[in-house]
Amino acid sequence: MNIIPFPDRAEWPALLARPVQSTQQIEAVVAPILAQVRAGGDAALVELAQKFDKVDLSAEGMEVPASELDAAERQLSDTLKEAIRQAYQNIRLFHERQKQPIEKVETMPGVVCWRKSVGIEKVGLYIPGGTAPLFSTVLMLGIPAQLAGCREVVLCTPSNHPAIYFAAKLVGITKVFRIGGAQAIAAMAYGTESVPQVYKIFGPGNQYVTAAKMLVAKEGMAIDMPAGPSEVAVYADDSAVPSFVAADLLSQAEHGADSQVLLVSTSKKLVSMVNLVLPTQLSKLPRRELAAKALENSKAILVDTEADAIDLLNAYAAEHLILSVENAEAVAEKIINAGSIFLGNYTPESAGDYASGTNHTLPTNGFARAYSGVSLDSFVKKITIQHITPEGIQNLGPVVEAMAEAESLDAHKRAVSLRMASLSEVNPV
Amino acid sequence: MNIIPFPDRAEWPALLARPVQSTQQIEAVVAPILAQVRAGGDAALVELAQKFDKVDLSAEGMEVPASELDAAERQLSDTLKEAIRQAYQNIRLFHERQKQPIEKVETMPGVVCWRKSVGIEKVGLYIPGGTAPLFSTVLMLGIPAQLAGCREVVLCTPSNHPAIYFAAKLVGITKVFRIGGAQAIAAMAYGTESVPQVYKIFGPGNQYVTAAKMLVAKEGMAIDMPAGPSEVAVYADDSAVPSFVAADLLSQAEHGADSQVLLVSTSKKLVSMVNLVLPTQLSKLPRRELAAKALENSKAILVDTEADAIDLLNAYAAEHLILSVENAEAVAEKIINAGSIFLGNYTPESAGDYASGTNHTLPTNGFARAYSGVSLDSFVKKITIQHITPEGIQNLGPVVEAMAEAESLDAHKRAVSLRMASLSEVNPV
Repeated sequence: MNIIPFPDRAEWPALLARPVQSTQQIEAVVAPILAQVRAGGDAALVELAQKFDKVDLSAEGMEVPASELDAAERQLSDTLKEAIRQAYQNIRLFHERQKQPIEKVETMPGVVCWRKSVGIEKVGLYIPGGTAPLFSTVLMLGIPAQLAGCREVVLCTPSNHPAIYFAAKLVGITKVFRIGGAQAIAAMAYGTESVPQVYKIFGPGNQYVTAAKMLVAKEGMAIDMPAGPSEVAVYADDSAVPSFVAADLLSQAEHGADSQVLLVSTSKKLVSMVNLVLPTQLSKLPRRELAAKALENSKAILVDTEADAIDLLNAYAAEHLILSVENAEAVAEKIINAGSIFLGNYTPESAGDYASGTNHTLPTNGFARAYSGVSLDSFVKKITIQHITPEGIQNLGPVVEAMAEAESLDAHKRAVSLRMASLSEVNPV
Repeated sequence: MNIIPFPDRAEWPALLARPVQSTQQIEAVVAPILAQVRAGGDAALVELAQKFDKVDLSAEGMEVPASELDAAERQLSDTLKEAIRQAYQNIRLFHERQKQPIEKVETMPGVVCWRKSVGIEKVGLYIPGGTAPLFSTVLMLGIPAQLAGCREVVLCTPSNHPAIYFAAKLVGITKVFRIGGAQAIAAMAYGTESVPQVYKIFGPGNQYVTAAKMLVAKEGMAIDMPAGPSEVAVYADDSAVPSFVAADLLSQAEHGADSQVLLVSTSKKLVSMVNLVLPTQLSKLPRRELAAKALENSKAILVDTEADAIDLLNAYAAEHLILSVENAEAVAEKIINAGSIFLGNYTPESAGDYASGTNHTLPTNGFARAYSGVSLDSFVKKITIQHITPEGIQNLGPVVEAMAEAESLDAHKRAVSLRMASLSEVNPV
């Protein structure tokens, strides 16, 4: 890692900047794919699968049959199934506690307002193919969808890994389609003869999938959040175990050459020791080439004080923030920008990636400044409801009349005045 | 209103379809404005204000001075100020109750996860100019921003109406800029010498403002929600008061010729009576021409049963839904798609538009299928936090190891294995 000793605050923005990705070229590729699926439906999906993935969807069938989903269970080891079930339980427990009871608020006598949460009726999940079969993401998206009571949950994935199918069954997904890439996003956004149109789309993907999500979002489709390369920041002091810190940095770096890895410390000693153990750990990794590339671009920043570290971490707004410091919980209270925070020596990011209970779909690329990670909230809408009694409209009416008049919205005023007048006719004061 | 008696379900989609707006042309106008502000900063804002609004910002000053904000109070009647203060209090009370306490969840022994809510550090509000000075929207956006603890709240508005300035002061906004249109969205998205860059942008506007918001959202900027023409659906039975229903329909229709107004009923009598009183009420409105245009495009749909009505309303997903029916609360429980619901004869939409306490920034154009209205949630991020003890990692570790291995993410596995190994070295079993 490049060590950057005590940089000036003026240098921070440049040091913390993420690589800017030009999306224009990718959008130019993706927009015609979206248009093709919108116009052509299933036939377009078959054509695009042939063209991009050399897959014959018309022979294989677009939808994965129930028998194939059922068969997945038999292809997995008991250890893995048990692990997935335990992760399911933890994630479910944490997300279940996010349910909010209805609370009626009487804002004035006779004026009662409340909110109810309703699951989004139809949601679509995308799980990419590639070397790592992301069945964990099926849990992270499928469990809150299940808890929210979403009536239709559609999964598109080019992967046919049994663990993905097993996880899909566990979270109650019944419709799984063998569709990958930008065309999968289009299918769920517009609907085809086979794929139902959904109201919100979730899930990771490559740059084409991401661009497709942003383009359909521009048309009003709801999506989980904008995406970018995964990242971790570790803030460590002399209470940190250097080999643990190195392992955490590497577990981020192995995601890909564009992964962002940042180490922040007030301790030169800690940084040197981490740098010392990194090469040994790296050499043992199957994905060492990817990880080495990511480490080349990564930085270890030395700062003078804890206050500096906190400011720098808030400026960076990391997707994952590991606080391997003595007073981790106190530091966490001062963090205002981060996706998810991991406290102390025994809380690796990978715990949250898989099984502790928190969601691993998190805002990256600095989006943590404005976005939250996926939660139960992501799968519900909160509808406000109000009930006003005759007494209530007498109390509230004059306020509405004055404001509507000042905004020159006369009909708004009359809707109240009429009701008030009818009451004074019936019950003359 | 056009009465549509008992249409087939197959006809519903066409009947309920909103007018499709082609955004391409507008985007072609807006994109260069965004680019100009991004590159030119304040100078571009001055140039664009001159070009589009015939306003000389360099003479007037871009930022409204504190003295001008202070002076606003003296220009308003006591009645209006009192009304705004009462609305402030109601809206604040309702949104304050949306605060969520931190709840720590122990998902396995030694594995504790929780969420904390943090106000988005910098947010930008846009309030359009035009005939209606939307100071109510300043309250609806400013109050939750204040409650969330957003550190910097920027307001851009081409209006200099004293009620807007008064409301801005009430909600604690200190930076108000005389900037309107797409260039205001650009200024807040990218920042200029004068206007701070924000992390999330809220507020209504014309098609140019809306297009600007969608374009910056595609770049990752958070926005409140996609926008469209305002709309109301009223479901009424014979317990409804026809003149109240007519008044509610008109209070929506006066927003503009593109406003969507829908009446749904099982009662021919009710529909006839509403149609009977509409012209008289319409004739009394200052904005009768706009409202008449909106009514021309609006529909009264007769259905056979309550179940049909509920299905139709859920298919429409109205921004505002008034249930003027005997069993309104029971019907509301079956509504799954709506922005905000108003129950009974004495709960007009205008109550919620101004002062009952609920937010009036709501999903329109069918977006209520996936989006919620603005609430305190819109101004905070929820950061997940976890702490795992040595005991906890022993419990959770094997789960993470099995899953990481199955996803071929070896470094993720090692981050856990290393910690478990260190513990068994120290405390050999």
